[in-house]
Amino acid sequence: MTGSPSRERRYRRTHSVTMLEPEEAYPMKIPGIIGGVGPESTIDYYRTIINLYREKYDPDGYPEIVIASINMTRMLAMIEAADMAGLVKYLLHGFARLKAAGADFGAIASNTPHVVFGEILERSPLPLISIVDATTASAASAGIKSAALLGTAFTMRNDFYRIAFERKGIKLHVPNADEQTYIHRRIFDELEFGVVKSETRAGFDAIIDRMLGDCGIEGVILGCTELPLLFAEPAGPGGLPFFNTARIHIEEIVATMAR
Amino acid sequence: MTGSPSRERRYRRTHSVTMLEPEEAYPMKIPGIIGGVGPESTIDYYRTIINLYREKYDPDGYPEIVIASINMTRMLAMIEAADMAGLVKYLLHGFARLKAAGADFGAIASNTPHVVFGEILERSPLPLISIVDATTASAASAGIKSAALLGTAFTMRNDFYRIAFERKGIKLHVPNADEQTYIHRRIFDELEFGVVKSETRAGFDAIIDRMLGDCGIEGVILGCTELPLLFAEPAGPGGLPFFNTARIHIEEIVATMAR
Repeated sequence: MTGSPSRERRYRRTHSVTMLEPEEAYPMKIPGIIGGVGPESTIDYYRTIINLYREKYDPDGYPEIVIASINMTRMLAMIEAADMAGLVKYLLHGFARLKAAGADFGAIASNTPHVVFGEILERSPLPLISIVDATTASAASAGIKSAALLGTAFTMRNDFYRIAFERKGIKLHVPNADEQTYIHRRIFDELEFGVVKSETRAGFDAIIDRMLGDCGIEGVILGCTELPLLFAEPAGPGGLPFFNTARIHIEEIVATMAR
Repeated sequence: MTGSPSRERRYRRTHSVTMLEPEEAYPMKIPGIIGGVGPESTIDYYRTIINLYREKYDPDGYPEIVIASINMTRMLAMIEAADMAGLVKYLLHGFARLKAAGADFGAIASNTPHVVFGEILERSPLPLISIVDATTASAASAGIKSAALLGTAFTMRNDFYRIAFERKGIKLHVPNADEQTYIHRRIFDELEFGVVKSETRAGFDAIIDRMLGDCGIEGVILGCTELPLLFAEPAGPGGLPFFNTARIHIEEIVATMAR
């Protein structure tokens, strides 16, 4: 049989698939997503994985995906209590559940829990795709040397993004304390509930403008998977490139499905 | 401690939850959803389960949910090949995966696979919520004696809805052969891709009008979880009540989370 790999796959799926055992029948790797942190971003991951899969591999395809939506209230309580061991345990439990459900590899549809990604990767029952590593690679190939990081207070105050970026020779700047409080509140009071306001967009733009003047940033990391709700455009004030961490993460997830 | 059960739950979750094992920490039952048939309706289930959970139990809550999105191309190939044993096996495999991922009960976010629901229920590793049973109960409490069933060709031609409705003394009418072909094509060529056209809505309304005159129907069963995309209103021509099977199913799922 000649033709593209995608056509061959489709042929196999629609013609001989019922003779195969479930685990043999599906030629693509199944992603296992820890979701619910927050739900709006989980929906974005689910929909975009399917759309990119169709663009890349099979226009009429329905990829298998497993999602375990965890309880964000519980996760945030652990983070506020600085219970990092509890957070690691909760997320590892999530990946064990996803593996048991047939996932071939895993990802967390959120930036914040990546503060413990190193510990999780060491003990994970599944290979994992890090949103931080995917974003760092993307910023490095864009050739920028300095970027601003926007995200939850937790993501901005911790150094998991900074360390990954410094390894690639990119300096990472975070907003000042007042700006951090403003950003964090807008994420939790509006974006987590799918609420998008133009005044909030203006507030974020003002922060980016201030950092452009004071820090000479060459790009902006949208380091929270809800932020793309607010920044639909690919670039900010002054044509500054935006790095949509969710989109970059999803592209890496979809690429991994075929490996 | 006094207060509502929801407040107590929230208190427990935010204050003492990190001392508990994951399986003990979460007081609600976790739904396990077989999704992907199709993805738009899976998103509707996910978002509506969360919204109804918040309305009913906890306005700031993030319920745990597990989703296994199966491959619809594969499912439809089995149905077209009349391989019901293969379909039963594939869906049971899905529920086994959901149970392994921590689900306490299961549901399929689609009407079509309910043709084999009886066989699945007998052998399922999880208690299951049937969309057909939930809809039948809802139509019976509305007091109607006759209804039209719209859905995929497969759902309209098979008798799993008719048998359930007749048990409750409700006569079920299906569109004629040409109308069935029209409805089926509009579901698979438009609604499965999230495409909603006013001319298609008009076409469906004409079929309902025809059945109202010829069969004296007292209600319309939207027997495909993509149909609510087309019928946003709760009633059709002549004030005829619509039964949104997805919504009815989700209400039963959310009620079961607290049991």
